[in-house]
Amino acid sequence: MNIGIDMMGGDYAPAEAVKGIRQFLDEGHDAVKLVLTGDEALVRPLLDEYAIPENRIVMIHASEVIGMHEHPTAALKSKPDSSISKGFKALATGGCDAFISAGNTGAMLVGSLFSIKALEGVIRPTISTIMPSVHGGSGLLLDVGLNADCKPEHLNQFAIMGTVYAKLILGIEKPRVALINVGEEEGKGNMLAKATYPLLKENKHIHFIGNIEGRDILHDKADVMVCDGFTGNILLKMAESLHEIARERKLQDEYFERFNFENYGGTPVLGVAKPVIIGHGISESRAFVNMIKLAEKMLAGKLMETMIEELS
Amino acid sequence: MNIGIDMMGGDYAPAEAVKGIRQFLDEGHDAVKLVLTGDEALVRPLLDEYAIPENRIVMIHASEVIGMHEHPTAALKSKPDSSISKGFKALATGGCDAFISAGNTGAMLVGSLFSIKALEGVIRPTISTIMPSVHGGSGLLLDVGLNADCKPEHLNQFAIMGTVYAKLILGIEKPRVALINVGEEEGKGNMLAKATYPLLKENKHIHFIGNIEGRDILHDKADVMVCDGFTGNILLKMAESLHEIARERKLQDEYFERFNFENYGGTPVLGVAKPVIIGHGISESRAFVNMIKLAEKMLAGKLMETMIEELS
Repeated sequence: MNIGIDMMGGDYAPAEAVKGIRQFLDEGHDAVKLVLTGDEALVRPLLDEYAIPENRIVMIHASEVIGMHEHPTAALKSKPDSSISKGFKALATGGCDAFISAGNTGAMLVGSLFSIKALEGVIRPTISTIMPSVHGGSGLLLDVGLNADCKPEHLNQFAIMGTVYAKLILGIEKPRVALINVGEEEGKGNMLAKATYPLLKENKHIHFIGNIEGRDILHDKADVMVCDGFTGNILLKMAESLHEIARERKLQDEYFERFNFENYGGTPVLGVAKPVIIGHGISESRAFVNMIKLAEKMLAGKLMETMIEELS
Repeated sequence: MNIGIDMMGGDYAPAEAVKGIRQFLDEGHDAVKLVLTGDEALVRPLLDEYAIPENRIVMIHASEVIGMHEHPTAALKSKPDSSISKGFKALATGGCDAFISAGNTGAMLVGSLFSIKALEGVIRPTISTIMPSVHGGSGLLLDVGLNADCKPEHLNQFAIMGTVYAKLILGIEKPRVALINVGEEEGKGNMLAKATYPLLKENKHIHFIGNIEGRDILHDKADVMVCDGFTGNILLKMAESLHEIARERKLQDEYFERFNFENYGGTPVLGVAKPVIIGHGISESRAFVNMIKLAEKMLAGKLMETMIEELS
């Protein structure tokens, strides 16, 4: 399988990406070839320095870079030779089977939605995050920002996509799915939550356990937690800030360390036809290794194929 | 002024309520008379035990109690002689000027909305919470659950009511108002946030500073933080769980201690014609003192009158 990597994305590119590739190759993964997009003049010397074997990579030169703060749509349009644009072009045309970047998040999202197709049957692709639970384990929270306005049928599909991801990637046999809400009883909530509950309840593709409240999100009540992308994005960013707060207050605590989302590598876009993984701007080599391994697992585990089956 | 207190509300009623009254009276407050609703046979002996002077109280006997987990509307209807029903009756008919309870939250909300009128001009009353900021200070977050579905004009009014409350009760001279959103720029957000932004921007009664994100909520970016009650309720409950988590992990940290919402006494219902304050079920004497003082401050500070002016 061929996994594409944007070598120019992230604050420490391309050096940390190359270091990550070195570590990844050191672990074996012989069936994987890495397709690198980026400025060849910058990347080549690093590949030599880290003795990356020529037969494990394909280099695609990209003369432009999309900056971290550029407007996504405008940048993709005005920079067809950027490392992100070239990566999506390779993904769309079969040059690679997955694409990873720690670069401009918005450009990665726009690219995912417009360069490659949504999976058959998917109304809205989604992005998720891992919420660490205080009693060990963690929950998959989705959507966390791709869909600020949602309809019940969107949330119902997020529940299915989250379930498939939790099974195949996180290794949870029978993921408990919950709807994030303002009360536990059926009938509680805003219009969206009230209309979503019966869909989840009757959905045979998931194991729905009912509503959970804000206090349950960090308490291992569910493996897949579904909400609209407005709520999810605010929850994710508040959770992220807890790590910073714990650090600022010099609390050396394992649990709050788990809110360091750099630990998790990257976030996959779920519901698009091929794996696209978006990393944090501050990704270091370990994050790149984790992202490449996640892409490999998504491909090898036939995540997309299973999603299509479960969504149909 | 006459401040009503439900003596039967909360896990430690009526003893902690009586202790709170004792402490309140010890601090002076000579202009305040306390109107107590509850089972006279239970309350009288405690009033004697704590030597509560007869001339500072009015006792209204209530033969029934609404349990913490009863259905609010049904309970209010079937128990007209409950301490909460009697309290609202007194409030509606001038027997008291404010009403406090640590009892059934839902019944207190329903009572607020149906026993007394909304303030002139208020479309939707609201409830708020204090969010402690890691750099000292705190922000007022509203709505936190009274209005799961909101329209832009509701949020715009929450901003005004929050501003008046922050000025008169929290003592903030020029409260910074922010809209909780998924991005900082104007134009970001779900449909509600996008439509609310221009209203806030043009609202002359508030000092609007723009959008804030989830990561800003605990970081003293704004004094008044506005969102729909679905989002706000989930944020509040997640924040509440942080106190419990810190305790469980034996983190002795001042900041996380501030997420112990018992510290704050109670939550006022804003936008109704008279002060109604809802306490935690686990309220102890200190919480009762704080609630009585809050009611006194709301009355003495002419909160309602100022809200009417600012809303018009």
